[in-house]
Amino acid sequence: MLKAIVTVMLKKGIFDPQGRAVQNGLESIGFDKVKGVRIGKQLEMDLEMDDRATAETSVHEMCDKMLANPVVESYSFEIKEA
Amino acid sequence: MLKAIVTVMLKKGIFDPQGRAVQNGLESIGFDKVKGVRIGKQLEMDLEMDDRATAETSVHEMCDKMLANPVVESYSFEIKEA
Repeated sequence: MLKAIVTVMLKKGIFDPQGRAVQNGLESIGFDKVKGVRIGKQLEMDLEMDDRATAETSVHEMCDKMLANPVVESYSFEIKEA
Repeated sequence: MLKAIVTVMLKKGIFDPQGRAVQNGLESIGFDKVKGVRIGKQLEMDLEMDDRATAETSVHEMCDKMLANPVVESYSFEIKEA
């Protein structure tokens, strides 16, 4: 059994309104040293697989097909023992 | 200049409908080896700070006050050089 931790973030240069809202919110409660907040998704998935290489290929495919929008998002992931 | 990477996930045992929807979606396109998908947020923040200990205290406070809902979410973070 393996576990995949996938992180999907907006690409650099793509405006991140949610991040901006959080930055403004933090500033309004006194955290004025926080700049450039970017918000993405983290997915944790249990994989019924034992082979790391197969799991990597599979997760790449999932990201390309469904988890990330390649036009505006980039992804990275790590595979570990569950 | 430091960078904080904050991960906010639903606590174990809290139902994650978004994760479930993604799991179903993946299954429907053939990824049937994926189980137990959980989805959280990842925040990347630039901090205009140089002291790691101060930054850690500050990020803890941000999470407690705004970034995570302590009732249903748990958070973790790492601080690194920007």
